[in-house]
Amino acid sequence: MKAHYLTNIPLQEAVSTYMEKINAVKLPFALEDVPVSDACGRFTAEAVYARLCAPHYNACAMDGIALKASITFGATETTPVKLETADFLRVDTGDPLPKSCDAVVMIEDVVEADSGDILLYSAAAPWQHVRQIGEDICEGDMLLPSNTEITPFAMGAMLAGGISDVSVIRQPVVGIIPTGDEVVPPSSNPGPGEVMEFNSTIFSAILSGWGAVPKTYPIVKDDLDSIVKVLQDAAYECDAVIINAGSSAGREDFTSTAIGTIGEVVLHGIAIRPGKPAILGIVGNKPVIGVPGYPVSGIVVLEYLMKPVIDTLSGRESPPFPKVQAVVTRRLNSLLKYREFVRARLGKVDGRFVAIPLNRGAGMVTSLVKADGIIDIEQDCEGIEAGHTADVRLLRPLSDIERSLCVVGSHDPLIDEVADLMHQKRRDMFVSSSHVGSMGGIMAIKRGEAHIGGIHLLDEDSGEYNRAFVRRYFPQGGAVLVECVKRTQGLIVAPGNPKDIRQWRDIADKNLTYVNRQKGSGTRILCDYLLKRHGMDPETINGYAREEFTHTGVAAIVASGQADAGLGIFAAAKIYGLGFVPICEEAYDLLMKESALELEQTQVFLETLRSPEFAERLSRMGGYSLEHPGLICD
Amino acid sequence: MKAHYLTNIPLQEAVSTYMEKINAVKLPFALEDVPVSDACGRFTAEAVYARLCAPHYNACAMDGIALKASITFGATETTPVKLETADFLRVDTGDPLPKSCDAVVMIEDVVEADSGDILLYSAAAPWQHVRQIGEDICEGDMLLPSNTEITPFAMGAMLAGGISDVSVIRQPVVGIIPTGDEVVPPSSNPGPGEVMEFNSTIFSAILSGWGAVPKTYPIVKDDLDSIVKVLQDAAYECDAVIINAGSSAGREDFTSTAIGTIGEVVLHGIAIRPGKPAILGIVGNKPVIGVPGYPVSGIVVLEYLMKPVIDTLSGRESPPFPKVQAVVTRRLNSLLKYREFVRARLGKVDGRFVAIPLNRGAGMVTSLVKADGIIDIEQDCEGIEAGHTADVRLLRPLSDIERSLCVVGSHDPLIDEVADLMHQKRRDMFVSSSHVGSMGGIMAIKRGEAHIGGIHLLDEDSGEYNRAFVRRYFPQGGAVLVECVKRTQGLIVAPGNPKDIRQWRDIADKNLTYVNRQKGSGTRILCDYLLKRHGMDPETINGYAREEFTHTGVAAIVASGQADAGLGIFAAAKIYGLGFVPICEEAYDLLMKESALELEQTQVFLETLRSPEFAERLSRMGGYSLEHPGLICD
Repeated sequence: MKAHYLTNIPLQEAVSTYMEKINAVKLPFALEDVPVSDACGRFTAEAVYARLCAPHYNACAMDGIALKASITFGATETTPVKLETADFLRVDTGDPLPKSCDAVVMIEDVVEADSGDILLYSAAAPWQHVRQIGEDICEGDMLLPSNTEITPFAMGAMLAGGISDVSVIRQPVVGIIPTGDEVVPPSSNPGPGEVMEFNSTIFSAILSGWGAVPKTYPIVKDDLDSIVKVLQDAAYECDAVIINAGSSAGREDFTSTAIGTIGEVVLHGIAIRPGKPAILGIVGNKPVIGVPGYPVSGIVVLEYLMKPVIDTLSGRESPPFPKVQAVVTRRLNSLLKYREFVRARLGKVDGRFVAIPLNRGAGMVTSLVKADGIIDIEQDCEGIEAGHTADVRLLRPLSDIERSLCVVGSHDPLIDEVADLMHQKRRDMFVSSSHVGSMGGIMAIKRGEAHIGGIHLLDEDSGEYNRAFVRRYFPQGGAVLVECVKRTQGLIVAPGNPKDIRQWRDIADKNLTYVNRQKGSGTRILCDYLLKRHGMDPETINGYAREEFTHTGVAAIVASGQADAGLGIFAAAKIYGLGFVPICEEAYDLLMKESALELEQTQVFLETLRSPEFAERLSRMGGYSLEHPGLICD
Repeated sequence: MKAHYLTNIPLQEAVSTYMEKINAVKLPFALEDVPVSDACGRFTAEAVYARLCAPHYNACAMDGIALKASITFGATETTPVKLETADFLRVDTGDPLPKSCDAVVMIEDVVEADSGDILLYSAAAPWQHVRQIGEDICEGDMLLPSNTEITPFAMGAMLAGGISDVSVIRQPVVGIIPTGDEVVPPSSNPGPGEVMEFNSTIFSAILSGWGAVPKTYPIVKDDLDSIVKVLQDAAYECDAVIINAGSSAGREDFTSTAIGTIGEVVLHGIAIRPGKPAILGIVGNKPVIGVPGYPVSGIVVLEYLMKPVIDTLSGRESPPFPKVQAVVTRRLNSLLKYREFVRARLGKVDGRFVAIPLNRGAGMVTSLVKADGIIDIEQDCEGIEAGHTADVRLLRPLSDIERSLCVVGSHDPLIDEVADLMHQKRRDMFVSSSHVGSMGGIMAIKRGEAHIGGIHLLDEDSGEYNRAFVRRYFPQGGAVLVECVKRTQGLIVAPGNPKDIRQWRDIADKNLTYVNRQKGSGTRILCDYLLKRHGMDPETINGYAREEFTHTGVAAIVASGQADAGLGIFAAAKIYGLGFVPICEEAYDLLMKESALELEQTQVFLETLRSPEFAERLSRMGGYSLEHPGLICD
């Protein structure tokens, strides 16, 4: 086993060291001429000067008559001037002003008399309603400075100024080399140990958005010679290269060695998380960056290290990331060694922005999709306390976040269905949901971190669901309970129920492998209640400590054969074609901040709950019943 | 002559009337399946659910060894656990977790002993460094709701979730029909009366940006039958149609009649300026909009009336326009009859945003390029007073505007050259310049509406340039004068000087046609000073009242043969290959707000003035000399 040692250079230092190096070599920066009509979004290579005046002749600016203004002098409401046919010429907008004329009178101001003569009731001023030559653009005027993005309007101005082709900065071609023995192209039926290679798809789309042209190479095995060979080709064919994975210090990590073999490794190891094992290199005069294999790590490296390279190659300057101050909902630990980037959901509750940190796993592609922002924890910071404010980089427009409904609480797929129906009806409204369990939902509402929390909490004393908890946690009010659904909880078991599980006790009696839900979730509380009622010791449950965060997560474990049973809802079992042993029916309701009732999006959410479309979706999912959905309980 | 009467419907009413009508017909809204890798930027047609778990197997999350966690229990710094080769398996990131194992220990924590045995100094927790099946995505999870834009990240999530094709909303095809007898395709050598058709290029680029697919038809003559025929084809082939021009009520305006012939005119005439003569129609189930021919008018109609149609056809919801509050620098009159949109330059001076209105001409394509924002004057408003604050819709990121240097004053093409050189050096900095004459520049600095004003003002008493004006207008300080250039003013005359003009007096003596500059410009003041010194009466100068706003504007008029002479700088004469009769040398300097000296962009601006690149540009332009450019005068 080899032991590599990576450096731990602070991000800003890494960027400036690398960019200095990059700027010292002759970068493959190039220009090309393109027709103006194809130039939208491109950047000018040099200042563009008009070759023609616009208008290029004196043009009539109105439909009407052209004349010499002086012959109308003295015309008033009471003393109109009468013009004979020879005194004027009919003109339309855009016609050249006839030689002898210096003004145009609008057709609306022309009163026809007999025999084609006309009357004017007010005098015309010289040059009125005439677009004089060069009024808009003069030959020689600078239309666009260099390094300027060509907008649709700039295209119009260039065409008006007689420019048909424009010199623009060539879009850099960026090679993407996916590597790894375990890596396979995306498929709908991958085998165990086959890691689907979707990073190059994500990277390509991101690079295109930055104005680069991505070029993805076929997957290369973990073999130094093969990687060197492809890298050599890519460094020849492209303006910059990304090698995906193999950037770490494991026994099959050849990226650094490959770059070093035919070029220079400028840096290996940056003090960021995720993204630490990034490699910054140069082969010939081409920047080559090795990025870690996990998508979240790879994207951090792309955004903070590849972006400046692309900007330099394409003559652009990226604006600073837009930021917002938001209250972080739970403590985020951070090592002093690293600057950390934590993706988060954002919402606006009672006038302040809240950031709900997402799973920090570098492999969590869903965290990329769900993220509205990125919490940036500086390198010298030990973390952020719950309830403290942090700088959050925005990934979506603030206006979208302001029109989002924050749902934080127990997981049920019905929340996604409501969100979908609601967004179908009102495309300007969004639902942002996070699964933190029922108790987490109550606390989020209490702390003002969410508008709505899904809860299903059994009060052991009263046997009643949810209401007792609202009374207990909101003795002074501030939150209301909204009825949602009744749903069946049961044991999710293998298809056909091969272990013949009939009741709750069987988990212990048949010594089954169980998969549990996380602490604080309603289903976990139900599990613990059931254990207690049956006098069962959690210690005796095989797998009690293995926690999943969602019903579908439990079903996935059962489906994979790793567990015999787990407590969950019917809908989850159905998705996986699993068996289901009903245990009890429970009320899944919505705890709502009272102030949230005033929001338009809350009203649309409630309407959606009451809609036939929602009922239809539930019946398709199975295991639910509706009584008074959307009813605000007293 | 025909007399049409247009309606004058308020904008909001027009939009809602039309959208109601549009939504009542069966719109050509359609779906299509595309490969996920081609789906970036498209909108989902329906909710997307995962078909696979991700990971789809229990995967090692680290390079290291896989083992059963229980065999490591009890390991500490002082009591390491020794493992034999049979107790563990070497694994790399992404490998499937071997059947008997439930944890991975990182290679960094593995200490090799003799004979392949290893020592562990801490216990492993079950499931540590294992990415459990479904950890990221569970089969059946909703990955994306319907009507959601597909980001690069969403592409990754779909591939990870086993989705290879996704159902998206088809991009609407929008036909653009340019019409007009006078209209010709863009060329570098158009004849008089030939109006270059660049609107379809601007519209196409804008529509593409909105996610539509533009389809431009060949130019159609002003002939009802021809227009009807092409409209019929376009309404068949496209999802929506734009007819460019002919929307007014002139004698060759057939758009409304054409729509009415094979469809319905819902509305003709909206209470907006520019854009009033817009036509909103329907042919079959296809929206058809007639837009006025002037580009600024056409774009207003596109943005406010076509955009909602495109959004509906493409399943999108546009966010509200971003806005900023800015101080308007000069009075804007507005008729109560219309809601008016006035394009403006924006700048940030001394902490507040200022809006400098641009030329309101509907044909001014440069106003589209220069505009940073649009001042929105409500219909019931008579206008905005100078110095009052108004809502301005942003057309550029606020961060760009904050890093712009506002130059407002006398026109000299050198300002554009400085701007170009400065932006080349610092791509994050911009110069926003407006020509309001020297006196306008002084007033703008005084009122805090600009950072820098170009001035060349002769004090008749002292014969000195500029300094006297600074003392007079800033007796308490607050502004400094920065030396810029000496330049030669003279009479711009026809090539070869056919009228043999030798001196200033010749304008009157030879009864020449003159073209003047606007009041308040330094060149106009110089002209008036020269007239006075020579005892000449302005009344006797033929063309004294014809005012141009720039040196190149004057040169363009002379070049077209409409005037024999105009006062201006050598550089302008040179661009047009005209003759030049030097009259005097003057100092063109920069008046600068004292507070602006602290801005980084001001420092870069001054550095640019002192640079050899700037000197080189000036010598290429001709007629300038440099002494101490960038010197701050006492």
